[in-house]
Amino acid sequence: MTDVPYPYDELVFLPLGGSGEIGMNFNAYGYGPPEDRKWIVVDCGVLFGRETKEPGVDLIMPDIRFLAEQKENVLGIVATHAHEDHIGAIPHLWPMLKCPIYATHFTAFLIEGKLEEAGLSGRVHPHHVALGGRFTLGPFDIELISITHSIPEPNALAIRTPLGTICHTGDWKIDPEPLVGKVTDVNALKRLGEEGVLATVCDSTNALVPGESGSEARVREALTTLVGTLKGRVAVTAFASNVARLETVARAARQNNRRVALVGRAMHKITEAARKAGYLRDFPPLLSEEEAAELPSGRVLYLVTGSQGEPRAALARIADNNHPTVSLTKGDAVIFSSRVIPGNDLAIHELHNKLSLLGVEVLSADDHFVHVSGHPCRDELAEMYRWTRPQIAIPVHGEPRHMAEHARLARSLQVPQAIVPQNGQLIRLAPGRASVIDEVPSGRVHLDGRVMIEEGAGLGRHRRSLAFAGMIAITVVLDAKGRAAADPSIIIEGIPGPIHDAVRDALEEPLKRHNPKRDGDGHELKESLRRAARRAADAAWGKKPVTKVEIIQL
Amino acid sequence: MTDVPYPYDELVFLPLGGSGEIGMNFNAYGYGPPEDRKWIVVDCGVLFGRETKEPGVDLIMPDIRFLAEQKENVLGIVATHAHEDHIGAIPHLWPMLKCPIYATHFTAFLIEGKLEEAGLSGRVHPHHVALGGRFTLGPFDIELISITHSIPEPNALAIRTPLGTICHTGDWKIDPEPLVGKVTDVNALKRLGEEGVLATVCDSTNALVPGESGSEARVREALTTLVGTLKGRVAVTAFASNVARLETVARAARQNNRRVALVGRAMHKITEAARKAGYLRDFPPLLSEEEAAELPSGRVLYLVTGSQGEPRAALARIADNNHPTVSLTKGDAVIFSSRVIPGNDLAIHELHNKLSLLGVEVLSADDHFVHVSGHPCRDELAEMYRWTRPQIAIPVHGEPRHMAEHARLARSLQVPQAIVPQNGQLIRLAPGRASVIDEVPSGRVHLDGRVMIEEGAGLGRHRRSLAFAGMIAITVVLDAKGRAAADPSIIIEGIPGPIHDAVRDALEEPLKRHNPKRDGDGHELKESLRRAARRAADAAWGKKPVTKVEIIQL
Repeated sequence: MTDVPYPYDELVFLPLGGSGEIGMNFNAYGYGPPEDRKWIVVDCGVLFGRETKEPGVDLIMPDIRFLAEQKENVLGIVATHAHEDHIGAIPHLWPMLKCPIYATHFTAFLIEGKLEEAGLSGRVHPHHVALGGRFTLGPFDIELISITHSIPEPNALAIRTPLGTICHTGDWKIDPEPLVGKVTDVNALKRLGEEGVLATVCDSTNALVPGESGSEARVREALTTLVGTLKGRVAVTAFASNVARLETVARAARQNNRRVALVGRAMHKITEAARKAGYLRDFPPLLSEEEAAELPSGRVLYLVTGSQGEPRAALARIADNNHPTVSLTKGDAVIFSSRVIPGNDLAIHELHNKLSLLGVEVLSADDHFVHVSGHPCRDELAEMYRWTRPQIAIPVHGEPRHMAEHARLARSLQVPQAIVPQNGQLIRLAPGRASVIDEVPSGRVHLDGRVMIEEGAGLGRHRRSLAFAGMIAITVVLDAKGRAAADPSIIIEGIPGPIHDAVRDALEEPLKRHNPKRDGDGHELKESLRRAARRAADAAWGKKPVTKVEIIQL
Repeated sequence: MTDVPYPYDELVFLPLGGSGEIGMNFNAYGYGPPEDRKWIVVDCGVLFGRETKEPGVDLIMPDIRFLAEQKENVLGIVATHAHEDHIGAIPHLWPMLKCPIYATHFTAFLIEGKLEEAGLSGRVHPHHVALGGRFTLGPFDIELISITHSIPEPNALAIRTPLGTICHTGDWKIDPEPLVGKVTDVNALKRLGEEGVLATVCDSTNALVPGESGSEARVREALTTLVGTLKGRVAVTAFASNVARLETVARAARQNNRRVALVGRAMHKITEAARKAGYLRDFPPLLSEEEAAELPSGRVLYLVTGSQGEPRAALARIADNNHPTVSLTKGDAVIFSSRVIPGNDLAIHELHNKLSLLGVEVLSADDHFVHVSGHPCRDELAEMYRWTRPQIAIPVHGEPRHMAEHARLARSLQVPQAIVPQNGQLIRLAPGRASVIDEVPSGRVHLDGRVMIEEGAGLGRHRRSLAFAGMIAITVVLDAKGRAAADPSIIIEGIPGPIHDAVRDALEEPLKRHNPKRDGDGHELKESLRRAARRAADAAWGKKPVTKVEIIQL
């Protein structure tokens, strides 16, 4: 690949999360000779567990043991913005790295909240970096470039090194009127392009979507008109972190002579962080939920959490008609000003249906213009490549299909090289032509309750088996001579009643056949009981439950 | 509501499935005096179990015990068309009704296949009714009216009774060029409108979607062009039952000098039924999978099953690179000529991603015009109401949100009355103004393995608990004096290893505290062990597993 002899400095890129999934972003850049590389980490996010694939798992995080084992070389974590898939793993993974954290104010406030909840606020404080600020971490010179996205203070990073400059876009779109915060600093990106960019590492979420993602300003106009057509109570649900959307909704309310009440913990948490960071100065004065309940229905607008059908969020409780202060009924309306995150469609449909059964009108992006995406569509990606003109395009933040299409697009735009990375691939960016030079330990770790478990441990598979066919737990007591001393205990869960008898009956034969002389410790008995129980269930039911047998030896 | 004295004849509508969900269609019409009503059933379909909501459940069917208890009055089942959500429950529920079945040829062939698989073909043969045919069942005069949908031989029913005529649309759209089968018999629908329609009972699936669903002919043009741009092997996945789509794809292949091979059992089953019913006469000669494998890659097109990400279907096996005859690689392409059924999005994304990782290009309705819906959008619904001009609109075949919006649309079109029914509501259509007059036992039954279980039995909830937090099964042996005779057996499944010890340790205390004199049968011990195990798991893990304790008394 290159004929530079060892030892020499290399610039490498190592994604440990986010290249192969939307979520769980964790990207590392390394600089130096292979045996003593310095690292910076860009973002440290989570993916949410899906009930079908990871039942009982709340959060999924990257396996970062490769960096944890050399944590003295990890110079810092830089958070591009405050979405959970970019900062959510910090309280869980920071203890493995114990390095400084860098973020702009709004993001830093939210990280501080997370560290405090995790009992870590005494051990680390994020460094607050100004918008457009620049700082160095060892060989890395890092400049923040303001972009637009669906949260305040999103940043691209210009990472300058002696071997070239990387433009790490973070999550972005081009919104000429973002309503909250700065517009994309196009000049800075163009200047970077003129200076020379080695690699643009870029968001792939919408690489399949033609055109542009659209501006928040258009949503504001549309929502203002839409709210104007509604007579009863109106509730709008949106991602709380989309502060511009909250402002959009609040203005739509004011234009229509409605007062706003926030409902749900995340709404309060985010607006507080936004105010601390200097945003929402124009936000209309809010009502408490109790005050709102006393206004005429045509005068109130609720901003509520729960757009994804989360069962404990405010909107789910409203739809179940058991929210303490908010109740909606015939003549009222709920606007879903959000998208459907894949995997949540059934939960959201259920919410729509419960609201419809209450007589509440449901309005969503299915049928009204009430949402724009925060990620770049194809025309915007093309613009980014025109601005930054990199030697290498590296699609990240996407599923394989998005990243493959993003790479095709980049090549069609004459970017000389496009590399689709996979988590754990160590990619040398310079010197020489970029290529995958190694594969490091990587993978996913599940936060299961409060315990971290490697995905490969198979716990998810075991629990899916339980969900599919239930469980049989059998205990047999053998006396000192190896004879059954009593009827076995048979514990059955998740299996239809009519099958229980078939299983019980099937155990008689192996117990009768048990020969204490030949099988005094019950080793064979154990296996024959297990097989008999599964065979009986299969014959009567068509499924083989998880079956475990224990012997108690007196 | 009405002042007609008893005894009198009533015409009633009773949905037992499909009003509140898309799937599981089961509608009954009753005629006669309340104490001796004759019934006909229109459609008898299934809903597929979703792993999140009904883990381990294959099929969900309506609870029809209300009709089963008076099966001598059920005159017949009329199947409007052959989709699973309209005929899939026949082999499971027919034994409860034992009535004649009526369907057109293509539908009847597929019902016969199902009855044969269920071992019922010796007991019932569906009556074959001609397209446009008319027959009577007791007081019901039933005329089939050809419409268009996404399967051959879809029918609306004109159900004439002495108290008025019902237009039951079945599933439909307006396709001026359906490619396979007849166009919608608009004249028959208009004639019905002139004759006078009491109620139009109508498909709500796309009631939220503006405009029209679009014609199969446009898909044919687009697919022909798209396949022309591809160089390597092409696989197209579509619903096998969409015979017009299969023909569309076959013609697109022929136009592009490619030969077609069918891959997957459903493709063969459906094309066989279609040929028996007289369709696909123009279908190009097919290759076997083996023959196709020997053609140059640019000369072959596979029509494969598995568009919904079904793990055992052909496409999933191809994506896993373990299909016996078909293998796709870099330069090849897969076209998903289908929609994403809600709940299947993650499975489909996974399929897309596996194919992308093989280097295969994935093309879908996300980014190309390769599919049209088979259900009427708002302009088409408006057309249907203009044709049939009913006194009453009854939206069915939809989730509550779809049905509510459909009713709003019907009212806006000046239909005098619109009723949104719920499964189990008995609705009097005549005499007098239509209204809900009773609620009959209804609900859902799960086919769990081979056993039918009422949804309310809680088995799903139990298995979801197992999936969330696993299971602990404890057995304690007490001797004749009530003393623990050995260490307990503790069977743990689905719980992280580090938690096991905490649970084991926590059982020591209650065992030590056990007082054989006071609690000789271990009743209290049982409960204290259960609580100790759950408390220990919760403290160490943050979750409470399903925990069961048994006592073996020597």
